[in-house]
Amino acid sequence: MDRINVALIGAGRMGQVHGGNAARHPRLRLTHVVDPRPAAREVAEGWGAAMASLDDVLADPRIGGVLICSTTDQHLAHALAAQAAGKAIFCEKPVDLDLDKARAAQATFDGARFVLGFNRRFDPHYVALKAKLDEGAIGRIESLQLINHDPAAPPPGFIPTSGGLFRDFTIHDLDLARWILGEEPATLFATASCLVDPEIGRQGDVDTARVVITTASGRIAVISNTRRSGYGYDQRIEAYGAKGLATAGNLAQNTVQSLTEVGCIGAPIEPGFAARYVEAYRLQLDHFVDVARGACASRATFADGVAALALADACDRSARENRVIRFEGAGS
Amino acid sequence: MDRINVALIGAGRMGQVHGGNAARHPRLRLTHVVDPRPAAREVAEGWGAAMASLDDVLADPRIGGVLICSTTDQHLAHALAAQAAGKAIFCEKPVDLDLDKARAAQATFDGARFVLGFNRRFDPHYVALKAKLDEGAIGRIESLQLINHDPAAPPPGFIPTSGGLFRDFTIHDLDLARWILGEEPATLFATASCLVDPEIGRQGDVDTARVVITTASGRIAVISNTRRSGYGYDQRIEAYGAKGLATAGNLAQNTVQSLTEVGCIGAPIEPGFAARYVEAYRLQLDHFVDVARGACASRATFADGVAALALADACDRSARENRVIRFEGAGS
Amino acid sequence: MDRINVALIGAGRMGQVHGGNAARHPRLRLTHVVDPRPAAREVAEGWGAAMASLDDVLADPRIGGVLICSTTDQHLAHALAAQAAGKAIFCEKPVDLDLDKARAAQATFDGARFVLGFNRRFDPHYVALKAKLDEGAIGRIESLQLINHDPAAPPPGFIPTSGGLFRDFTIHDLDLARWILGEEPATLFATASCLVDPEIGRQGDVDTARVVITTASGRIAVISNTRRSGYGYDQRIEAYGAKGLATAGNLAQNTVQSLTEVGCIGAPIEPGFAARYVEAYRLQLDHFVDVARGACASRATFADGVAALALADACDRSARENRVIRFEGAGS
Amino acid sequence: MDRINVALIGAGRMGQVHGGNAARHPRLRLTHVVDPRPAAREVAEGWGAAMASLDDVLADPRIGGVLICSTTDQHLAHALAAQAAGKAIFCEKPVDLDLDKARAAQATFDGARFVLGFNRRFDPHYVALKAKLDEGAIGRIESLQLINHDPAAPPPGFIPTSGGLFRDFTIHDLDLARWILGEEPATLFATASCLVDPEIGRQGDVDTARVVITTASGRIAVISNTRRSGYGYDQRIEAYGAKGLATAGNLAQNTVQSLTEVGCIGAPIEPGFAARYVEAYRLQLDHFVDVARGACASRATFADGVAALALADACDRSARENRVIRFEGAGS
Repeated sequence: MDRINVALIGAGRMGQVHGGNAARHPRLRLTHVVDPRPAAREVAEGWGAAMASLDDVLADPRIGGVLICSTTDQHLAHALAAQAAGKAIFCEKPVDLDLDKARAAQATFDGARFVLGFNRRFDPHYVALKAKLDEGAIGRIESLQLINHDPAAPPPGFIPTSGGLFRDFTIHDLDLARWILGEEPATLFATASCLVDPEIGRQGDVDTARVVITTASGRIAVISNTRRSGYGYDQRIEAYGAKGLATAGNLAQNTVQSLTEVGCIGAPIEPGFAARYVEAYRLQLDHFVDVARGACASRATFADGVAALALADACDRSARENRVIRFEGAGS
Repeated sequence: MDRINVALIGAGRMGQVHGGNAARHPRLRLTHVVDPRPAAREVAEGWGAAMASLDDVLADPRIGGVLICSTTDQHLAHALAAQAAGKAIFCEKPVDLDLDKARAAQATFDGARFVLGFNRRFDPHYVALKAKLDEGAIGRIESLQLINHDPAAPPPGFIPTSGGLFRDFTIHDLDLARWILGEEPATLFATASCLVDPEIGRQGDVDTARVVITTASGRIAVISNTRRSGYGYDQRIEAYGAKGLATAGNLAQNTVQSLTEVGCIGAPIEPGFAARYVEAYRLQLDHFVDVARGACASRATFADGVAALALADACDRSARENRVIRFEGAGS
Repeated sequence: MDRINVALIGAGRMGQVHGGNAARHPRLRLTHVVDPRPAAREVAEGWGAAMASLDDVLADPRIGGVLICSTTDQHLAHALAAQAAGKAIFCEKPVDLDLDKARAAQATFDGARFVLGFNRRFDPHYVALKAKLDEGAIGRIESLQLINHDPAAPPPGFIPTSGGLFRDFTIHDLDLARWILGEEPATLFATASCLVDPEIGRQGDVDTARVVITTASGRIAVISNTRRSGYGYDQRIEAYGAKGLATAGNLAQNTVQSLTEVGCIGAPIEPGFAARYVEAYRLQLDHFVDVARGACASRATFADGVAALALADACDRSARENRVIRFEGAGS
Repeated sequence: MDRINVALIGAGRMGQVHGGNAARHPRLRLTHVVDPRPAAREVAEGWGAAMASLDDVLADPRIGGVLICSTTDQHLAHALAAQAAGKAIFCEKPVDLDLDKARAAQATFDGARFVLGFNRRFDPHYVALKAKLDEGAIGRIESLQLINHDPAAPPPGFIPTSGGLFRDFTIHDLDLARWILGEEPATLFATASCLVDPEIGRQGDVDTARVVITTASGRIAVISNTRRSGYGYDQRIEAYGAKGLATAGNLAQNTVQSLTEVGCIGAPIEPGFAARYVEAYRLQLDHFVDVARGACASRATFADGVAALALADACDRSARENRVIRFEGAGS
């Protein structure tokens, strides 16, 4: 089968994850990297890819797709340009930090070959959990607990452009809640504190939060977030149904355990997103290839990105005003 | 050491748990049972105890203490009478369903030899967790997740006199939050649904709830409750600190596991409160003996019962009005 | 139901375990203790039991049973005398250290109301495992791994009268192998070392051993023993069948776990036999009551004791001569 | 850094594992495949490698190393030819099935750039266990339990050329015992049965075995093998030391667990060697690159292969003659 030529737009932290996967992918050929920073050239060479401008990439008919890993404020502009150029698009989350702009663009991506970087939807553990729920292993889902704790606070310089905890971090969990419940939120309550790093607070952001979502049918999802866990990258789902509980747990770094007089000691959990979601990133790219070929519809659309962003906005408002947010058109 | 003579007031479900433990206790002698129901006589005889009226018990100088396991609406009257008679008191929770009445009585029990049936405070697993937290194993506690899921909904006839989910059931978790955080709630938000049994809803109660508590210093506690789990009596605590996570988990019914092509199958968790908290009930009675002898102060006071009841009231109000409750005198 | 009066013979370490359980048992009344040591009187008084001579106990028609917890060299004589007096008998293991003497007495106990102290047969975890195997959960059993590691070496003074590691300690596992496989050994190989305490070696004993048993049908059981684990009382069974693996694992002291940057730390396993087998000892006595009443046949007979002793003898011979032992009449 | 050109010799089951890893390896370039079978061409093309004869490969100065994955009876001849040609060598196990031939060749590979396919030595879980043992986490190692259970019996056609269970399968565990204990066996006892497939027995082989190894200092290692587990590829190590127990356990296929009234159900363990040792195969090749460059000495030498083969031969003899084997020069 012919490989699809793709260009990477932005060779930063996430760009290097996706670019590396693309370079090793049996059905992709990473031909170009778009990134004005000098350091990007060496990265590109390691993959055997050439440097190029965005315009050249979009104008080149041999390039079938783009991997948008630019800074968050550029995601939407790059996605719109790529869509106009007829490219298949993989785009890192969030689609934008401005909900109005994102909503305005949503129709443009209806039916587009567009996969959003909601990596949890491709994680084999979460996919296995979803399959178990869908096959009725624990009956109808009634409530959900999503744990998403980062190992360590980001550098203070990251905060101002991040969009804040809810748009940058919680957005993954807001998407998971929609994906697993299969029902839109009716009300939302968020509470947040700055317990980890006072500097985060000085920049107007928070680092510890809980979000409670209810749906019209009375289901409840709780999201637990913190910017610093002290014990690794804690990523878990607990789904409570009419007949039981199904969970997806953490991955230990290895299976070694020792028993001594002090107790049973096992390995720490995976330290960060790169190790924890290594398989998810790979499988996400597999899905992008399928979408790019038109073999299937996207499992993470632009519309999903807008919906999650709207919930993130609501979290922000709820936490700041310390009140419950009701969504228009929602019953209850 | 001489045994303390005690009388059991109320030989119902909880009365039989505590009465049985008292009858086998090396430092107690269960001499009398107060319960007008005919069936109580046989129960008392099994323990070698005599039937008596409450007045006779309270007037008998040889009886040093009472175990109050009457119906909830009688707890307070029985406790007040026993206190007036100078008896040491063990009293099942809640102290009352009416917060005003409970508050009015609170001063009467200041320094009293009074142990409230907040059994979680005596569970060896929770006590071991508390000790670990107190010794700083995970640094300063920042947030808390309390899971308390009943295996199956109570009979509909129980609901009207129960005080509702929050006063009857959640009250244990509200007490645990106070006990573990060591800081009073500043705000509280509760949301609740009727997902388990429509009959519960028809009686104006709920069966599935989440409560989010914040403290003045920004700590957050989340409580998860349901009246029917489908998989046993789910009782867990997760405490998140600056340096890690500490948990107390469920007890499996046995240690047998089998691995076959369908996976790894372990035993179900304990099916209900009697099996799960068998040790807690025993240790609670040990503590009652110590308190009755004046050897130590109570670890579960009447004031603790009032504080938890006030929070349960706030849960009820928050869920009904779908809004955040702020507590007077609380900062934030 | 009337209680059975029983007398305890020997109030040492095991006598205190069984005597305490008998004193609290709802269907037994511990009336007498036979033990010439002065310290025994206080122990008996704690249970409300009187001191008596063995002759008086055996001659007293009101006493229905005896619990033989005397020193190993007296087990057989005491059991024979009690049997002659028509008492129901609970007897600690081993039946004797001399296989010929034990074999000579075996017929005397055919059909007797006699329960041997093979406590593992009554442990709820092992019983649950056996039930799973018997119901075919993993198909036909093909091999077995028995782990029995003591937390710490016994005092040197215990070794000379113990009969050695195989007769004193391994005998439990030899019995378990017979019980679970339901087939007699055809060959046996044992190897042993003195790694824990050189003093044990100077007394001619060993402290670390492995035993491999094969049956005529080709099944294999491996026993792992050590006198000092360093991490608690390790008691596990792994049964391998045609369709899977079933295990019974260790009991942790509590369910608390903490996750920090050094890993996941759980509680130590139970430290010794008293804590690990507390339920087994209780259930064993329940069974003794049933056997004493004639309600059921013994699940741990004198003949089982003789069979296990014969295997222990073979272990000793195999380890000393470093060769495989074949059993008479066994096919192989 | 320049890539090393390597050729794959034999593109069968294991050849495809190693060939695929070499093709994706950042420091290798898989240039040629040697395999006369027509199907090999397509495999080679998938990697972008050319077909070649062994002679051409060995004569080509641009080729720095070979990956020998031919049939077992060709391993030694291919290794000798490659060594004579000055190539770095990765060679699948066993080095040969004939101990005398292997011993005769041993000196040829002293100091050679030769890595044997003892993949367990490179598994990150086993390496982490070894590191823990080496740092003294459980004190001096006293005994070892190695579990190696295949999920399903190989096709009968495989048996005649396999060398039998001990040389084909147990050899991994014999090597592990040497690697972990760091002490050579003094005696060995093996017992084996044919319980899985009667056809295996008709071909003179066995499918279920236990091996007990002792060292001169009294340490004991037990190996547990079966050709069919019924529950996946069971790969575990338990190391018992003076101060505790350290284990490396199985990998579950995912982290999903469900709790219902039937119990707690987790995912099956990895189904076979390809999934279980995927990381080990990759890391083994990393090590091969280092050895090929002369950057370090081999961690799995030809001499290790000969030593393990000698033990496999002893297992075969012990099981057939049902007796203990003592090794020359060994004390005890």
